[in-house]
Amino acid sequence: MRVWNRQPNVISMFRYKLTIEYDGLRFCGWQRQKAVIPSVQEAIEAALCEVFGYAPLVEGAGRTDSGVHALGQVAHCDLQDSLPEYRIQDALNRFLAPKGASVIAVEAVPSDFHARFSATSRSYVYKICNRRPPTPLSDTRAWHIIQPLNIKAMQEAALALIGTHDFSSFRASACQAPSPIKTLEDFTFTQIGEQITVSIQARSFLHNQVRIMVGTCVKIGLGRWPTTKMQEILEAKNRCQSGLTAPPHGLYLAHVSYES
Amino acid sequence: MRVWNRQPNVISMFRYKLTIEYDGLRFCGWQRQKAVIPSVQEAIEAALCEVFGYAPLVEGAGRTDSGVHALGQVAHCDLQDSLPEYRIQDALNRFLAPKGASVIAVEAVPSDFHARFSATSRSYVYKICNRRPPTPLSDTRAWHIIQPLNIKAMQEAALALIGTHDFSSFRASACQAPSPIKTLEDFTFTQIGEQITVSIQARSFLHNQVRIMVGTCVKIGLGRWPTTKMQEILEAKNRCQSGLTAPPHGLYLAHVSYES
Repeated sequence: MRVWNRQPNVISMFRYKLTIEYDGLRFCGWQRQKAVIPSVQEAIEAALCEVFGYAPLVEGAGRTDSGVHALGQVAHCDLQDSLPEYRIQDALNRFLAPKGASVIAVEAVPSDFHARFSATSRSYVYKICNRRPPTPLSDTRAWHIIQPLNIKAMQEAALALIGTHDFSSFRASACQAPSPIKTLEDFTFTQIGEQITVSIQARSFLHNQVRIMVGTCVKIGLGRWPTTKMQEILEAKNRCQSGLTAPPHGLYLAHVSYES
Repeated sequence: MRVWNRQPNVISMFRYKLTIEYDGLRFCGWQRQKAVIPSVQEAIEAALCEVFGYAPLVEGAGRTDSGVHALGQVAHCDLQDSLPEYRIQDALNRFLAPKGASVIAVEAVPSDFHARFSATSRSYVYKICNRRPPTPLSDTRAWHIIQPLNIKAMQEAALALIGTHDFSSFRASACQAPSPIKTLEDFTFTQIGEQITVSIQARSFLHNQVRIMVGTCVKIGLGRWPTTKMQEILEAKNRCQSGLTAPPHGLYLAHVSYES
């Protein structure tokens, strides 16, 4: 393996958009950090280094936490060579597949495309399995909730969060976003038998916002709080008022949209 | 733990029907056998022994192979005591959940109910993920096929097998069934994006019949054989004529039906 400097001094660089699926339980999250298991970002950078002999910086659209899965995380990187997209994809997957990640699409994009800053919306899915007995076939892929959930109450409560609000009540203490104002575009609960799927969409989210919103809805769905409590929590602008942070392994970064 | 004889000499016995979900990769199959990892049958018998202090025989509706999952395997057993069904279920799950199995329903049934012989039909589901890149989120739950499949050709070929036939071409050499004549009631392919779901139903099946039928359809879906080949294979009554046995981890015993 040849190792060159990080961003080699060449005139032409070719930007590529990578769409990535991964099993969140096999990584310490998206972002590079000091941990025993690698981050997805590090794994992709390592794969690029194996394939090309240098390690371009990989910038992701969203920083998923440890345990959070992705069906369609998006990242970009700059390569020195213009190569057929399928060749980049296959070469990266040879190194990523054994680690629990897969590049499901590669696309050459203009050099002003930015996975994070060009994104116009992010869609998450949260999966809940609502039944009394254990769930051996989905226990690493959905939140198992034993007590019956009132999906109608959860949906009613969720509607209070749609629109532009100060989401301070749904923000992890570690959140570094400059503003707590976000615009929630979708927060829909769908139930098929014991499987509950929550669809959540916004241009961007605060740290842990999706998981705290889902955790708060679950508390209402269990009947511990009335549906009207959601409006009070929102107005309190205080993390202590909302429910627990839903576990990461039920959450999927499903899709990132860009202006075409 | 008290250990009594296997079928204690008591006058009253209460028969219970158990419906079981399990992760096939964590067991050596349904049937008790000499293997390092236990069978599902042994795991349930061991759990019953932990709970009741004796080990009633557990008889299953179908003998799933190692790696084959179940969404709704059915078994029966005789207990010395009549207990609320939810108490039996919860007690068994305390021991089964860490092993990868879950009793999803318990029902008191008449003493002439037999999980295997009373069954009127068995439904299987086979899951295929048809795309080029690796599938980290489903690689233990579906057969990953890289080359594009022609689902229309597979469905057309599958129709040739519907009805009552001699299924010798779709029978593992180890199969001990007295007759190769079976009646296939359903063999339907459904595609949503890259996910292909195959639904298969019959009163009973030969050993590996479902997996050999699916493997043969895949060979036709890949364009290696014409759809008309399925009729020839059926008529040949020779295992050497059909396709490969599809891998076990895509197969699920979905449902067993009984006369109500």
